[in-house]
This record gives sequence, structure tokens and C-alpha cells, in this order.
Amino acid sequence: MPVHLLKKYSVSEAVRVFCEQIIATTSPFAVAYKINFAFFEALGDAGTQVMRSVLKSIPDEILTIADAKRGDIGNSASFYAKSVFEDLEFDSVTVSPYMGKDSLLPFLNYPKTCTFALARTSNAGGNDFQLLDVGGEPLYVNVAKKVASWAATTPGTAGLVVGATDVNSMANLRIMLPEVPFLIPGVGSQGGSASEVMSASGSGPVLINSSRSILFASAGQNFAEKAAEIAQIMQEELGK
Amino acid sequence: MPVHLLKKYSVSEAVRVFCEQIIATTSPFAVAYKINFAFFEALGDAGTQVMRSVLKSIPDEILTIADAKRGDIGNSASFYAKSVFEDLEFDSVTVSPYMGKDSLLPFLNYPKTCTFALARTSNAGGNDFQLLDVGGEPLYVNVAKKVASWAATTPGTAGLVVGATDVNSMANLRIMLPEVPFLIPGVGSQGGSASEVMSASGSGPVLINSSRSILFASAGQNFAEKAAEIAQIMQEELGK
Repeated sequence: MPVHLLKKYSVSEAVRVFCEQIIATTSPFAVAYKINFAFFEALGDAGTQVMRSVLKSIPDEILTIADAKRGDIGNSASFYAKSVFEDLEFDSVTVSPYMGKDSLLPFLNYPKTCTFALARTSNAGGNDFQLLDVGGEPLYVNVAKKVASWAATTPGTAGLVVGATDVNSMANLRIMLPEVPFLIPGVGSQGGSASEVMSASGSGPVLINSSRSILFASAGQNFAEKAAEIAQIMQEELGK
Repeated sequence: MPVHLLKKYSVSEAVRVFCEQIIATTSPFAVAYKINFAFFEALGDAGTQVMRSVLKSIPDEILTIADAKRGDIGNSASFYAKSVFEDLEFDSVTVSPYMGKDSLLPFLNYPKTCTFALARTSNAGGNDFQLLDVGGEPLYVNVAKKVASWAATTPGTAGLVVGATDVNSMANLRIMLPEVPFLIPGVGSQGGSASEVMSASGSGPVLINSSRSILFASAGQNFAEKAAEIAQIMQEELGK
């Protein structure tokens, strides 16, 4: 966080101003904003209000993604889904698949939304379970195929989180699931390459996410302008 | 929720009063309260404040469990951990293991807390991935052993969520991990039997959770007294 904001405002207010200024300068280059719930929950009582204010500053035509990675039994999941889709009015959400079908259906059943289930994540720990062999295929493939099948009656509502740091897994999934939207983190700070991702994800729908390389392009007074420069460069790279 | 509370209060205030009255009458029979984050997030802006008020009403000697099922890359996980352990001052938390080691370490590294990773969950969808065979053992066993090993340098901080609806899995895990605390949901409304759970969980540490059968023992004016009756019956059953 830029020091001048922390000096001027409370932490909650600094986060709000920071996010809204980043959105104001980067929105010409963005198709979506992914809101990481961890950073807002860490603000305590003010977190939800700050998030709501930030969300309001996003232009209507730009998609919003609730990066919440929720996953709970059906009854609880329906409350999480209601919160992100009805109260906060997000267009999409990330969820964790470990608890299976009934933990995802309350999300998948919302029309005109997209629920991205974690399949192959970009972090180091993504290898711990996702690559385990289950009946001749890695777990992440089993997850991806099942999640896609669970949305068979609600086409378009299921997507997958597929990290940019393993383009072989991405290409593998794209062959099996040509139409399923991929949310692709890991380009930029985490080391994934935009051109490799474009090649591996083929002609199916993708949302390519870069967080830290844009948000933290500068910690100075010019943070929002620098963020826009990086966002524009990334937009141009992806457009090639 | 009892209708008389919803008639008298706003939804947020009704939830607060409901929880605090349940806690007041059931605390003589409880060793822990598990707070399900979904229901508080669904309250919108007031959710965190209501949760904080409910937490404050729990007697100091009783454990608190943040049932949040969080799981994200290390950087984000550290913010979730800070929120539950430092800001909200929970004693323990539930997490989802799908993203692996770096998603759990920020929780496991807090001393004098316990982080319960989902291993074998009590919902129907728990069978979708947790029972998949990975190298001769079900995924939930692989998860349980790895999570326990990740806390090797911080003894006591790793626990497992092991549902009461599959006592064979529970017995299986207890033989392998005799000292690891189990958080056991699914007794009561979900069909798990207290006596079978006591037998399957052996002499290792357990927290046995019952939510709906206590919370919704009555929807009338007497809801808190009826909840206490059920809690006392359960305490007596578990003490046998």
C-alpha cells in the first residue's frame, strides 16, 4: 500500500481509496475485476462496506469476480451464494470443490452468473493434491470434469480456476472442456507468461488475471498511473 | 428462526439475540461453539459486528471455532488467519485443503490455536472426491496424513474435520493419527450416532458438533430452553 495513503487515512479508508483509484485508471484496459475477500475481511467491521463501495466504483459493463473460494455443505453454501450474488451483486465467484456436488450446486444454480471452481491452482501447494493420480488421471482433471457435468442443466454457470504457472495442465483441460470458461491467475508476479497462456487456453473463453503486478506497480503517489501502464501493456500482450 | 424474534427485531438483531440466548442456556453443556460464517456473511454490512457480539457472549473457558472453511494462496491465507485469530480472536478455524501446504501454513503457524482441515466431510458430496483412490488409499487419508505432517513443527495446531456419518473412515483415521484432534460434525440432524462416534474416534481428542438439532429444537418462545434440553441430553450421551 502506498505510504501516503496510510499516512492520510485509516487503513480501511486507505484500502478503499487505493482500490477505487486503481479501478479509475485501469478500467479502460480491464474486462473484469477480481475482489480478494481476504483483504476486506482483514479490515474487520468495515470490510463489507469498503468492498461495497469499491464494487460500486466498477463500471457496469465490467465483470466482477468474488474471489472468496467458498465451499461448505449445501445449506451453508446457499447462504454464501446469496451473499455474493444477491447482496453484493457479483457476476461470478470462486469456490473450492473439496466438499463435492452439494457444496457447489447453490452457486451453479444462479442463472447469468459464473462459478469458478478451483481445479489447477497456481501456488506451490497446488501440487500437493491436485496432481495425485486418480484412476489414470490427475485429481484436477477429475474435479474439472465433474464440476462441468454438475452444471449441465445450467449451461455457462460453471468455470474453472486454472493457473498460468502450469500451461500443460491448462492445455490438457482445454482439450477436454473446450467451452468451459477458465479464470487464469498467476500471470505476472507469480511467473506465468501471457503468450504461453493464450496458446494453452486455445479458443475457449478465458479471464486472465493479474493482481500484484498491477496493484503494486508503484508504491508512490503515482501508483494508479503506473498500474494503468502495466494494465495497458498486459492488454496489448494479450491482444497479440 | 423463531418467528417472535423476526417480528420484534431486524434480521441482524434477531440473529444476534437468537445466538446469544442459545449460548446463555446451553453453555453449561458445551465445551465449544462453532460459528458458521455463512450465516453472518449473509447479514451484509452488520455481519461482522453481530458475530463479534455473539462471540463476546461466549464464556471465556469455552472454545470458539471459526467455521469458515477458508483456503487460498499463502499471502491471502495469512490475511484470513489474521482476521480469525487476531481480530476476531477465535481459538480455532476450519480450512479447506485443496490448495495444499502454503494455503494452510499461515493458519498452522499460529501457536495455541487449532486449524481443522476438511478431511472426510459429512455431506453427500463428501463422497465425490474424498473417497477417490490415490495410490492405494482414499484421498481423505492422503489429506489427513499430509496436513498432520505440515504441523510437525507446531504440535497441536493441526486438526481434522471428520464427519459422524462415516464412522469407518473415522476409525481408519484414528488408527493412523492417534493424537490429532477431530472436529466431528454430523451428529443429530445429519444422522450420525453419538455412541458410534465415541467408539470410532477412540481415545484421541475430539470435538463433537451438533448444530441444527440444538439450534432448531423449537421455533417457539421456548427455543433457548428446548436447545438446552437437547444439549444436555447430548452431553449425557457422550459422557456414557
